[in-house]
Formats: sequence, C-alpha cells, structure tokens
Amino acid sequence: MSYAPVDPPPRLLMGPGPITADPRVLRAMSSQLVGQYDPWMTATMNETMALYRDVFRTANEQTFVVDGTSRAGIEAALVSLLEPGDRVLVPVMGRFGHLLVEIAERCRAEVHTVEVPWGEVVPAEGVEEAVVRVRPTLVATVQGDTSTTMNQPLADLGEVCRRHDVLLYVDATASLGGNALEADTWGLDVVTAGLQKCLGGPSGSAPITLSPRAVAVVEGRKHVEAGIRAADDTDAAGERIASNYLDLAQVMDYWGPRRLNHHTEATTMLYGARECARLLVEEGLDAAVERHRLHGAAMLAGVRGLGLRVFGDVAHKMHNVVAVEIPEGIDGDGARQAMLDDFGIEIGTSFGPLHGKVWRIGTMGYNARKDAVLVTLAALEQVLRAGGAPVTAGGGVGAAREVYADATTSGTDA
Amino acid sequence: MSYAPVDPPPRLLMGPGPITADPRVLRAMSSQLVGQYDPWMTATMNETMALYRDVFRTANEQTFVVDGTSRAGIEAALVSLLEPGDRVLVPVMGRFGHLLVEIAERCRAEVHTVEVPWGEVVPAEGVEEAVVRVRPTLVATVQGDTSTTMNQPLADLGEVCRRHDVLLYVDATASLGGNALEADTWGLDVVTAGLQKCLGGPSGSAPITLSPRAVAVVEGRKHVEAGIRAADDTDAAGERIASNYLDLAQVMDYWGPRRLNHHTEATTMLYGARECARLLVEEGLDAAVERHRLHGAAMLAGVRGLGLRVFGDVAHKMHNVVAVEIPEGIDGDGARQAMLDDFGIEIGTSFGPLHGKVWRIGTMGYNARKDAVLVTLAALEQVLRAGGAPVTAGGGVGAAREVYADATTSGTDA
Repeated sequence: MSYAPVDPPPRLLMGPGPITADPRVLRAMSSQLVGQYDPWMTATMNETMALYRDVFRTANEQTFVVDGTSRAGIEAALVSLLEPGDRVLVPVMGRFGHLLVEIAERCRAEVHTVEVPWGEVVPAEGVEEAVVRVRPTLVATVQGDTSTTMNQPLADLGEVCRRHDVLLYVDATASLGGNALEADTWGLDVVTAGLQKCLGGPSGSAPITLSPRAVAVVEGRKHVEAGIRAADDTDAAGERIASNYLDLAQVMDYWGPRRLNHHTEATTMLYGARECARLLVEEGLDAAVERHRLHGAAMLAGVRGLGLRVFGDVAHKMHNVVAVEIPEGIDGDGARQAMLDDFGIEIGTSFGPLHGKVWRIGTMGYNARKDAVLVTLAALEQVLRAGGAPVTAGGGVGAAREVYADATTSGTDA
Repeated sequence: MSYAPVDPPPRLLMGPGPITADPRVLRAMSSQLVGQYDPWMTATMNETMALYRDVFRTANEQTFVVDGTSRAGIEAALVSLLEPGDRVLVPVMGRFGHLLVEIAERCRAEVHTVEVPWGEVVPAEGVEEAVVRVRPTLVATVQGDTSTTMNQPLADLGEVCRRHDVLLYVDATASLGGNALEADTWGLDVVTAGLQKCLGGPSGSAPITLSPRAVAVVEGRKHVEAGIRAADDTDAAGERIASNYLDLAQVMDYWGPRRLNHHTEATTMLYGARECARLLVEEGLDAAVERHRLHGAAMLAGVRGLGLRVFGDVAHKMHNVVAVEIPEGIDGDGARQAMLDDFGIEIGTSFGPLHGKVWRIGTMGYNARKDAVLVTLAALEQVLRAGGAPVTAGGGVGAAREVYADATTSGTDA
C-alpha cells in the first residue's frame, strides 16, 4: 500500500481545542534542527524559559517545557510533587478535576475531593474547610475546565494555601493566555499548560513553572541516573520519583546550568512552544486576555441571539469556550457533522453528564478573531434552520456585531 | 526583552543523533491541524499504524506512536508491562541498558542484569543462563546502544525468550531503519523507537509495536478513567498502571475503534512520524538498511584512513554510528568545537567510561549520504592537522571513496 504526504482538509477549528494553529507557529516549527547541546540550542531553551516567565507572570527560575502533551505536564507535576501516602485535595468541577484525581491516585497519594455540580466553580470557603479537615500537602485544581466551561477563581485559593502552608498546583491547559493568570501574585506554586488552546499552537509541549518552595520539594526527591552520575552526586533522601521521563528534578538538571543529559529535547515542539509564547508576549498578555474576552463575549451573545441557551454559571465562564444547549428536536451529532461537511467548521461535543446535551464552541488562540466568530454563527444559523429549529434570521451575527460595535465605541480594539 | 522568530544556524548533524531532519518531514509537519476526531485525522492515525507495521516488520494490530520522545516510549512499555515486584532481566552493554534498569526500578520491578564491558554485545547464552536462574517475566534490552555503538543480536534472544515463555522488550530508538529489525520473525514482543535517528525526523514521537501476548498483559491491567467511564466498563484485576499518560491500555483505546479520549494527540508530531515512516517504506526497509550499511562502512574506512582507531567490537557495530578514539595530544572538546565553528558540522561527545576518550560520529537518516560522509571526513582531517595529529593527507576521503567505488562495482547503489 502506498500513501501520499499528509494533505489535511481545510478546517476552522471552533471546538474546545485543539484549534487551528497560528501559521507563524507552524512556520517556526518547520525550521531545521540543531544539536542538543549546540550553543544556539541552549540559548533557545533559555529564551523559551524567559518567555514563559512572562506568560505565567512569574519570576520562577524553574519555568520550561515538558516534552509531551498538556497531560504529560500534569502528570510530571503530580508525580514529582506527591510521595506515596501524601494527602492531596482536589476541587472537582468537571472532567479534568476527575483526571487530576486519577493521576494523583496513580501516584499512590491519598486523594480527597471537594465536588460541585457541573456548571459551577468551587467556593474558596469549601476548599479552606477541606484543607483544615484533610491537612493535605497539596491542593491540585484545574483553572479552566473545558468540560463545563467554568473558570475557577484562583486568587483566593492561593491565599488559603499560603495561609495553611499547602502547595497549590494549577492545570491551566485550557485557560492560559485567554484568561487572567498571575502565578506569583496569586501564590500558585506549580502551573502547567499546553499549546493547543489559547496559545495557538499544536498539542505536544507542556509549559510549566515551579515556585521555589515547589522546587525544594522536587529537589528533595532527586536521584541522578546511574549512567550519567558524577562522583560527587548524592541522592536525596525522599522516595525516588516513580517516573524517569516525567521526573522534574532530572528535567530541571537538563534545562539548568548542569545540562545533564535526560531525554532528547523535542526540538520542533520547542520551536513551536517558543513561538507561541513569543507571539503572546509581543501582543501583551493583558491584550491577549482582552481579545479572548471580547470574542468570547461576541460568541456568547451570538448563540443567544440565535435563540440558544447557554449551560452553566456564565458569570464564571472561561472567555474562550461556551457550552450551548442543543435545542429540542435537533440531532446534536448530525448538526456537528453538517457544520464540518458543509462549512468546514468544527464545533465540539461533550463528556459525561453533558454528553448529547451541549455543544462546546471555542474562540481561542488564532481563532479568537471576529471573522471566525461571525462565520461560525452564520453557518450554525443555517444548520439549525435546516434541522427545523426556530432561529431568528441574522440573530446570531447581529448580536455578535453589537458586541463588536460596543467594544469599538468604548475603545476596545475589535 | 524582545525576541525574533527562531532562525537556527546551518548545521550538518553527524553525531549520534538527533540528526538533521529530512526536509520532507519538516514540510509535512508544517501542515495545518484538524480536529482530534475528524474522520481525516483518525484515518491518518490508521495510516500511521499501517506504515509502522511495515517499519517494524510486524503484523501486530497494536502499532502506533506515543506522544513524547523515545524515552517516553521506553517508559510506556515498561510501566505498562511491569507490575511492582515483577522480575525483569536487563542485558546491559552501555548507558542505555542502565536507563532500562533505572526505569524498571522506578516501576518497582525486581531488576536483574547481565553486564558486559562497554564495546561488546551480550551473548545469548549468558542471557539464557540468567533467564533460567532469575525466572523473569520480562527481558528488556537495547538493540543499538549509541553510547558504545554496539548492535545487540536479537534473533537468538527472541528464541530464548519464546522457549522460556518470557516477554521480550527491545529499545530500538537508535537502530530502527538503519539496521535490520524483524519484530515478528525474531519474536520481539514490544519494540519502541524515536524519530531522531535513522528515521530522519525530530525527537518527540515514539513509535511502538506490541505483540498479542504483550497486549494481553497490558489489557489485563486496564482501568478506564472515571471521567469517561461507560456503564459497562469493568476494570481489570491487575494493579493499576502507575502512569496515566503512558498507560498503554488507555492509549490503545484511543488509537483503537473505541477512540476513547485520552491525551490530545500531538498532531504535528504525528504528521512527522507518518512522513518518516512513509519515506522509509517508499525507499524499502531493506534498501534503507543497506544505505546505512554502505555509508557507515564508508565513514568507518574514512576515519581509519585518517589514521584513527575505532572503539569496540566492530563486527557488532551499528551501521549508523562509529566511536573514534581521540588521538593522543588532541583536545577532544576543542576539536568538536572547531568542527562546529569552522565547518558547521556537529560530531558527538560520549558518556561514562568513554567520556573524553572517543568521539561518536553518526551516518544516519537524512545524513546517511555520500556528501555528508565526505565533507565530514574532509573537515575532520583539517581539524586534526591543525591540532597537530599525524594524519595522512586525503586519507579519510580517499578510503571512503574506495568503499563507494567497490559498492558501485558490486552493484550497490552509492
């Protein structure tokens, strides 16, 4: 059997991510490789660290990328922070909270949760009450959970964790770059992300930052590989981290001045991660968050203008995704298929209790753009009408246009 | 601080890998993304599975890529196969054998080794004797260990493992595509690789294949994630795999007909992995191995023609890398620096007992080419002469040319 080179169909990806990559990121990723310890390569790694410090709003020295998808970043954080038997508290507001539970259990931690119904965020008082009761070493939370579109407020959680001397880990995969995140100001100890959401790149690289107190925990568990151990290397007392690939103590020695050989850096993904951060820093983080706010507001107004209902506590909705209730009588999967087949636009399905009940529509990264919002609303109107749903002609695009007009009047750049 | 887009210096990467990527692979990787469950995407995943069956020479249904570097593939195999307390036997002939030991220990396996001095391969009889003594559930070995350049013969090991009903795992990261590997004929149960050696791509994707009996072990440990569990999902009896990200039972459900959500596939790396395999299959695996044999032989003759000595048991040398003893009086790191600074050519340093004693020079993937071999030898001659080493003028290029001339006479395409 013979195959041709890849030639993907044109798609506008307006789901909960991955989304269409910024062409500038793909261009950066087509650059040729250099050697692993080439001075240019190590300088590029250092630049990438500096850029992600800006993206995470942190002064943390230990800010780099893990070679894997955003899930690899989550697991690297948890497996490196949690010793077997450690107590961890996970506020759960959707699917990705369950994922943190699952990964923490596999680290053999004692996992406790504070759960709220899908569509709500977890109140800080509930977390504090559980912290006092459970006495965890770590609170692990998702910031933006795309399964419900909720954006968990973090400033209060950071304050609670500092006050009770608990580490705070945040999975910001789906939120970073499109919603405010202030690692240092809010007291977040470890934050991980991915490129495939608001950062406008492909999945496969997981930016991470660790505060000095998180670094101290990880370093306390460091064991240098036998094959590259120096005579004066001594192992720490803690139990050896259960993963080698995701052992952040080793990964930090690879990114740090020792440049100890570990994995072979995924250079093409590094180029992509660097370009994602570079574009975001060039735009300005505040401007990028405002851009996501604006286009998210336009999409929200637009789907409501089509007569659709929105799921969840909209006051706490992430800027970059909205969960839209599938109207009575419409075949949700059939409508998504029609969007894809007839208009080349992908919108998302959903998980668990929301499966078959809502579509998830994203406005993020490269696709947090006016034309992407308007063309999606225009196509959705046609698909709903063809399916027999009562829709106001032009209601979606019209409502979105009003949001843009207001923004222009008030001086926000649309 | 403001940064420009990445703009790498031109390099010819003639070390032990990563090496210069085939431009066709980089072009494939610059293709735009599609959605995770787009029919085109799942078809592309299926094509990638089919292509890697050809590359691994296997009929194994479970043949796919792990989203991480080659080391992620190794860890995925070991953490998914080994339950805590399982006995594993690791033949160690260099650094990457020690890495298998390290990873297996982190899986809490009981690890036994058969070691040989660096520069030798492990005799099958020694492995069989240890299998009888240790009674492991798994033998885990490296095929090509770049730290010593040795190519471990595997056909006999496969036979031993089948006879004693032991699973055989092979790390073929550095060897696959440039040295014969016959997964099914040789009885290899699990084989993993990376793109950055003979496959001519960047690091960041780890092709893997699992035999039905290996799949049975992994499936016996399957636990479906709580967040996406269906009513009729029942968990297996075995201890839950310690990693979620590298849990092959879950990864197989993502690549298989259930398409259960797990990580978000690293689409750009998938495009790269597919193109690497496509080019190799188009060339023909036998032709690719022969190409690596030829250019490896030319490089070997060339360094000897320069009066240099070669480390290790050359009869068991991998085709794609040679370890060259640094001559008396030459500063090894200074010479590598001069190769890079003055000629844009990277050759490799070395690890452990060989550190400071040998350079490692590769001829692999896109750089298993006559011009790459000859220009490296020409530059090395100049650097050695400038360093005061006694070299025969033209001796390296001349000796390599003779290998090419012989190959042309005997009908092998140079």
